[in-house]
Order: sequence, then C-alpha cells, then structure tokens
Amino acid sequence: MNEHTQPVALDKAYRLINHGPTVLVSARHAGVDNVMAAAWACGLDFSPPKVTVVIDKIAATRGLIEQSGYFVLQVPTVEQAALTTRLGTTTLASDPEKLAHAGVELFEMEGVNLPLVAGCSAWLVCRLIPELHNQQAYDLFIGEVTHAWADSRAFRDGHWQFETAAPELRSIHHVAGGHYYAIGDAIATHS
Amino acid sequence: MNEHTQPVALDKAYRLINHGPTVLVSARHAGVDNVMAAAWACGLDFSPPKVTVVIDKIAATRGLIEQSGYFVLQVPTVEQAALTTRLGTTTLASDPEKLAHAGVELFEMEGVNLPLVAGCSAWLVCRLIPELHNQQAYDLFIGEVTHAWADSRAFRDGHWQFETAAPELRSIHHVAGGHYYAIGDAIATHS
Repeated sequence: MNEHTQPVALDKAYRLINHGPTVLVSARHAGVDNVMAAAWACGLDFSPPKVTVVIDKIAATRGLIEQSGYFVLQVPTVEQAALTTRLGTTTLASDPEKLAHAGVELFEMEGVNLPLVAGCSAWLVCRLIPELHNQQAYDLFIGEVTHAWADSRAFRDGHWQFETAAPELRSIHHVAGGHYYAIGDAIATHS
Repeated sequence: MNEHTQPVALDKAYRLINHGPTVLVSARHAGVDNVMAAAWACGLDFSPPKVTVVIDKIAATRGLIEQSGYFVLQVPTVEQAALTTRLGTTTLASDPEKLAHAGVELFEMEGVNLPLVAGCSAWLVCRLIPELHNQQAYDLFIGEVTHAWADSRAFRDGHWQFETAAPELRSIHHVAGGHYYAIGDAIATHS
C-alpha cells in the first residue's frame, strides 16, 4: 500500500467492478500465495456487496480459495496489462516461481491475511459463499465483499476519476489473446 | 436488422461481452415484449458459450424469461446511452408503454421468436438453464448462447473493431446513476 490506498465504503464497493474490468484474483492458503487473471468477474448484489468470478479447475488459485474461504479481486491498470496477461497464461503448477517471474509485488492490509497486488487501482476482499453445485458445474464462485480499498488517484468520493486521472491508471478490459481495451471517455445521461 | 447484422460463430460469441459492457436484456412471452438494462452480465463458459446475468425480482423482464425460457443480451452503443438509462430506470409495471415511450425499435431474426433491439452492436440469444436456487437466492440467471450476431462495422472476423469503427458504436460501461464510460483505446500484450 501507499498513501493513495484509501478505504471504499462497502455500499459503494460494487462500483469498483461495475464497468466490467478484467481483474486479478489472489488467494493464500498454508503459506502459498497465488494470483491469476479473470475476465469473468461481475457484481451480484449491492448490500451486502457480492460478486461472482469464474475460476477454471486447472487454476491453482482455485484450491487456495476453496481451502481458505477467501479471495481478493483487484483491478489492474493499463500499466499492468502485460503483467495481467502473464498472470493469466502461466500456472503455479508449471512454474512454482510464477509470481516472482511475473514480477508481482504483494502487500497486506492490516487485519486481512491475504495477498494484495501492488499497483492495482482497487481491491475487494471477498469471503467465499460456498455453493458447491455452482463451483463444480460452472466453475462459478460467489463472494461477499468484506473490505474494499482503491487508489484515490483513480477512485475517490465513491466514483472512478478516469476523466482526470493519469491514463496509465485506467482499467483494462480483455477481449482475447492478450488484447485489451482501456476504459475510455465518460458519458453522462439523466437517470 | 440491416446489411451490417452478421452472424458470429458461437465459439467467438463470448468475446461480445468479454470486455464487460453494460447490456440490454430483452424477452418475450405471450405477446408481451420487454427490455431492461443490466450492468451485471458476464461470460460463464466458452463452448458451448454460456453467460450469467443478474435480474432483480421487480423486473418485468424476469417473468418473461422464466415463462418463455429464453432471453437476449445485446450490447448498446454510445449513441444508445440515454436509451439504456431510460430502460434501466423505468418498469413495465409502472408504464405499460415503456418501450414506446423510450423509443425502442425492435426487430426479429429468422427462426428466433424474440425481440432484438435495433441499433445495438451485438446480440446473444440465450436459452435459460434453469437453476432455481441461483434465481431465487441471488437473482442470478444462467443462459446458453444459441445464436449470436454483431454489427459488422463494430465486430467482425471474431474481433471488436473499435479502433477503426465510428466512436458512437463503442460499448458503454455503467458506473452508477446514468454515468458510463465508453470503451477506449486498444492495448496489445504478448500472450
């Protein structure tokens, strides 16, 4: 963390992923940390905030989540696009030094024994809500958000600030094969 | 439909929503059509392609889906941002003429008895996979994509073409309260 890492009120936490960014999923169990990329993460409820994320059976992160009951969704930035691709295309099984080789820097927040990825723009700590049928049949995991933080240069006062933030802090949205779009211009309509 | 409405191969259909756009959800039952907006739609599987979408119990569209067993996810454009907000903030229950008042133009594709929203950039016809626990406990609906089309000016050869397409064809990504971001610049990394 740094001085820009600020808490996000839980009733605003859904906004951190409402615009559909690709995320990094991290977890820890029995001294093992891992981080993977996931394009299929999504809001599920506002209050308490819940999320879904699809995690394939070959992902080492999946076992850490199932065993620890916790995971973190974090929003990588334009600056982390290559890192995100690396984390999404290598596995801990084939490379036990995956995180070091990818150059991931992890940090912890007080009271949360989980690995957070430095340099992201937002972090959502999630407690797994076990739903074994979904997990087995669809690789679909549900979590309740228990803590949320954001980089205050990119998200503050309950809103993303991409209009005025540095372009390299924008979220990235995976299409396929390491190709992303950054989030773009703001559009306001009357609700 | 128009001459730009082209079929998308089902093994590429996930790419239509992989970058996390806000979608319009439409359905038809017993002569009633409706369309709603949903920020919480997401890929679930590649082949056969499956999707998730969260649909609140107050949404009239939900009943049409439950009764007909089908729905359509479609990707609205920058040009349709105000329309999307209107469709997301009015209900068929309070305004039986919701679609007419919003100015929605519907069309059908041959062999598919469902209302598609004209002017969108992509359409995914989905067969509901009934999962009553998810629907009741989480408002979470799962569908298998049976047909997909896209506007070939925005998506062709299995890829979004936002780099070269007209800016008003870009997807929109809802944050909150009628505020969106358009999708932005392309970023390529080595996968």
